[in-house]
Amino acid sequence: MERIIRINMNNLQASQEMVKEEHKMLGGRALTSKLALEEIPPECEPLGKENKLIFAVGLLAGTAVSSSGRLSVGGKSPLTGGIKESNSGGITSQKLCQLGVRALIIEGKPKENILYILHMSGEKIDLIEAKELKGLGTYDTVEKLRARFGKEVAISLIGQPGEKKMAVAGIVNIDLDGAPARLNARGGLGAVFGSKGIKAVVIDARENKCQKPIDKYLFTKANKRVLELIKDTTMTSEIYPRYGTSAIVELASQLNCLPTLNFSHGQFEHADKINADALFQLITKRGGKGKTTHGCMPGCVIRCSNIFPKEDGEVLVPSLEYETIALLGSNLGIASFDTIAEINRLCNDYGIDTIEVGAAIGVAMEAGIVSFGDGDGAIRLVKEINSGSVIGRLIGSGSVITGRVLGVQRVPAVKGQAMAGYDPRGLKGLGVTYATSPMGADHTAGQTSRASVDHKSSKGQVEVSRNAQINAVIYDSLGLCLMVGAAFSREPQLLVDLINARFGNNWSMESLQEMAKEVLRNERDFNLLAGFTSNDDRLPHFFQNELLPEANTIFDVVNEELGGIWRNF
Amino acid sequence: MERIIRINMNNLQASQEMVKEEHKMLGGRALTSKLALEEIPPECEPLGKENKLIFAVGLLAGTAVSSSGRLSVGGKSPLTGGIKESNSGGITSQKLCQLGVRALIIEGKPKENILYILHMSGEKIDLIEAKELKGLGTYDTVEKLRARFGKEVAISLIGQPGEKKMAVAGIVNIDLDGAPARLNARGGLGAVFGSKGIKAVVIDARENKCQKPIDKYLFTKANKRVLELIKDTTMTSEIYPRYGTSAIVELASQLNCLPTLNFSHGQFEHADKINADALFQLITKRGGKGKTTHGCMPGCVIRCSNIFPKEDGEVLVPSLEYETIALLGSNLGIASFDTIAEINRLCNDYGIDTIEVGAAIGVAMEAGIVSFGDGDGAIRLVKEINSGSVIGRLIGSGSVITGRVLGVQRVPAVKGQAMAGYDPRGLKGLGVTYATSPMGADHTAGQTSRASVDHKSSKGQVEVSRNAQINAVIYDSLGLCLMVGAAFSREPQLLVDLINARFGNNWSMESLQEMAKEVLRNERDFNLLAGFTSNDDRLPHFFQNELLPEANTIFDVVNEELGGIWRNF
Repeated sequence: MERIIRINMNNLQASQEMVKEEHKMLGGRALTSKLALEEIPPECEPLGKENKLIFAVGLLAGTAVSSSGRLSVGGKSPLTGGIKESNSGGITSQKLCQLGVRALIIEGKPKENILYILHMSGEKIDLIEAKELKGLGTYDTVEKLRARFGKEVAISLIGQPGEKKMAVAGIVNIDLDGAPARLNARGGLGAVFGSKGIKAVVIDARENKCQKPIDKYLFTKANKRVLELIKDTTMTSEIYPRYGTSAIVELASQLNCLPTLNFSHGQFEHADKINADALFQLITKRGGKGKTTHGCMPGCVIRCSNIFPKEDGEVLVPSLEYETIALLGSNLGIASFDTIAEINRLCNDYGIDTIEVGAAIGVAMEAGIVSFGDGDGAIRLVKEINSGSVIGRLIGSGSVITGRVLGVQRVPAVKGQAMAGYDPRGLKGLGVTYATSPMGADHTAGQTSRASVDHKSSKGQVEVSRNAQINAVIYDSLGLCLMVGAAFSREPQLLVDLINARFGNNWSMESLQEMAKEVLRNERDFNLLAGFTSNDDRLPHFFQNELLPEANTIFDVVNEELGGIWRNF
Repeated sequence: MERIIRINMNNLQASQEMVKEEHKMLGGRALTSKLALEEIPPECEPLGKENKLIFAVGLLAGTAVSSSGRLSVGGKSPLTGGIKESNSGGITSQKLCQLGVRALIIEGKPKENILYILHMSGEKIDLIEAKELKGLGTYDTVEKLRARFGKEVAISLIGQPGEKKMAVAGIVNIDLDGAPARLNARGGLGAVFGSKGIKAVVIDARENKCQKPIDKYLFTKANKRVLELIKDTTMTSEIYPRYGTSAIVELASQLNCLPTLNFSHGQFEHADKINADALFQLITKRGGKGKTTHGCMPGCVIRCSNIFPKEDGEVLVPSLEYETIALLGSNLGIASFDTIAEINRLCNDYGIDTIEVGAAIGVAMEAGIVSFGDGDGAIRLVKEINSGSVIGRLIGSGSVITGRVLGVQRVPAVKGQAMAGYDPRGLKGLGVTYATSPMGADHTAGQTSRASVDHKSSKGQVEVSRNAQINAVIYDSLGLCLMVGAAFSREPQLLVDLINARFGNNWSMESLQEMAKEVLRNERDFNLLAGFTSNDDRLPHFFQNELLPEANTIFDVVNEELGGIWRNF
């Protein structure tokens, strides 16, 4: 049976407990949300001592299944004021698993303003004072930590904005190369991390205590079939490995939902300069350490990431992803990969969410703080976040606060969290997800772009979104990357087979869906207790009042329909 | 029967209607809140075209009753996101009354970015383009308007922050001397004013169409008794006329609830430099145009205002009031009347709320933007609000946003609106009002400082606050100043007599209270529809966690009790 490690920052004590019987079949988001509802007072201050930061691995974590190493982190979000789960690639999930840990809960708040490293090695857990890391970026911090604790450790950490408890701060995880490049980016969980007085969690798994499948034969057989499907599916075998998520630039342009100039347009006139083909050509041409395909976590066979090189072939940033290209590119009128990648590198170094930062800068551009298309201006603003100047702290508070202070009404956000790279007027099912997900606007909470519906019609989108949201919870709870979904969706029974083989139980697809529904119910319960109402399940007014020019449509799923999504759920 | 004037800024048309039968006995706050609930979609954007700005005179407006000329302005607040009524002295109410107007509703939003003067003269209503007033302060604007429209007009107007739609912006009314000194300060209604494209409302009442009392004899008799009571009550005949509201510095110090250094203390070591006696001595010593007693509206016999002179005897600002002294004085560690008065003058010129501004600067001081006690720094910050710099826009967004951006947890506000000059830990009944009033933290919504209870005990405060809130609605609906309450409270039946004599009806005290309860129900209904929950009826956590040192107490009225205040109401 796996362990739960609990770190009490009030008294700097660690303790452990076995996973409770009723939590045994909960992993990833299912577990963070359940524990959040059980242990965090929903009315608490997100940066206060009553909030908790909960790390959990998925039900398939540590296994040979491709793309199963997503790390869930949950708690009460300082950005939304509601429950949050944000997941990430990297190696943290695998290392936690190898320690025999299902979840790590950090609670309380240190009395003094001291910064700690939480070091976990085998059975040993230490809180080590870390003055020397104060104010360092993630690159420098990781370099020091790897020098001190070895190159085999996993590290989850924060940059300066996390130390300053800014709402755009995420948690950074190192990847297989030791680069601080994979973020639990959304919802400001880096600020909660910082509020606990922790700079970095270092995990040194000397031996592998990961729970082996109970029915090894069945597990191997199912996993073999998964690999066949991945190889036999165009998305997972050709498009993602070649282009990665940047392929979505083209898809979003076709749907007229590429966020452009602060969500005022759905197409970008220079989209050809920031699309998948342009990225592939540029990386290939520059060569050196650049890579068009790269895995973000151990055992992934899709390898949809990339390594973006500078002109001289040295690494600029791993990896340039679609949401970053959309929010920091077209949304800001910036058509240069070098500029976007430089901002991305800064965001990784500072440990901040490229989506929220991109949306907030878009709002600031609309207010005239810098001009649309001004890449240097955007870089300057990102550096201000890190320096903690007033404008930096403002952008660092996220898009909604930025809009409120600068007097901008067009703010693409729900429940205080910015939308990702899809204008909801051109992709209405995702618009329903943005509006109704307990997570705030979040493309991973129920993406509908591949559903067989007319994305511009309001008809049936609530059902499409509901199904996508249930599906997303399943992936988030198993620790599976959504990118492998194109393969699994052809034989979803494999998900159940893998779980049953690993845990020796007898789930059906219905059990899996019932688990996911229960997670959504838990999350909504938390938010209701935190003070959310149906008014929070709405898109900003401008999406209903302003035509998206290229799509010639507004967001017209009516409030009554939105309100019905969780009725009798 | 009185009229309602309606200005539609969508098409720049004015129209009028008679007061509906069911609104006949609604004045001031009762009318603004009823019309807001009936006509404003609670989910609307406060600065959008669906919001309305509603001016209403009280049921006793335009009569000879002392202190009956408060002007109520209501709408959806950009500061709280809920319903708002904010009232003010000045001459606007009387002039509206003389025009035969019970309420003025400004709705819609002009298509183009043009600034207008709304000019009402007799039956004539004009919207006049006012380019020349753009960006002017209220002093300059009033000077130009009085030169153009004569010295007999009433003017309600906004400064630059109102034009920029900042949440600290109020609506400024000129007083009997033509000074822009009386504000509907709270809740950001100046921003709503600005969002309608209006710089000033100018009211030229050539003849007096004010409704005369139906039973003149009874009315005169009752009013005579009111005057006797005012003369026979120490507060209204001696203390207020001599010291005005500054007398509260002493009272608050005794209760250990004088907001000091951003609500971290309940006493100020230099309180003797900013108390009533010091103010009286200083004004008397400087002489010139300074006055220790002054009326803020026509017909007031209490005259609790003052005119604060500069050293040379010229007017610095009319009038220095307690809330300003507390929030901009002790709360900021500033012990100089000259500094406080200078900030007050700037706030009047810019048309911004001294309470919200003081609270926001207190939070900024805690964040280290300037130091506590730094008067020049505080003046600089207020000037930044007007200039619209980023820090200015931040402070101009109010205390809650300022705290959120600057990372300060100690923010003395409820529902987004800052507390007035009383720490709720030392005056727990008012703490209950702060928490539960539909208006957000507001001392005028249910002041309990004169109730015969132990203000530090949590016991019975919910009932004390409930009664005070009902009482406040009565005064706000009659257009009566709360300062006259010390006299009326000795024979409350006089309120009913005056109304019955004026309108020829047959109310009892119960009718009056039932009216007030219905107003509170309307306001709560609006807020519920706007997305408020019981979570919004809470004080910030620090009041429950941090001892107020001098009072040695926390705010310990428990949430369950707070939640009960409107149960079965």
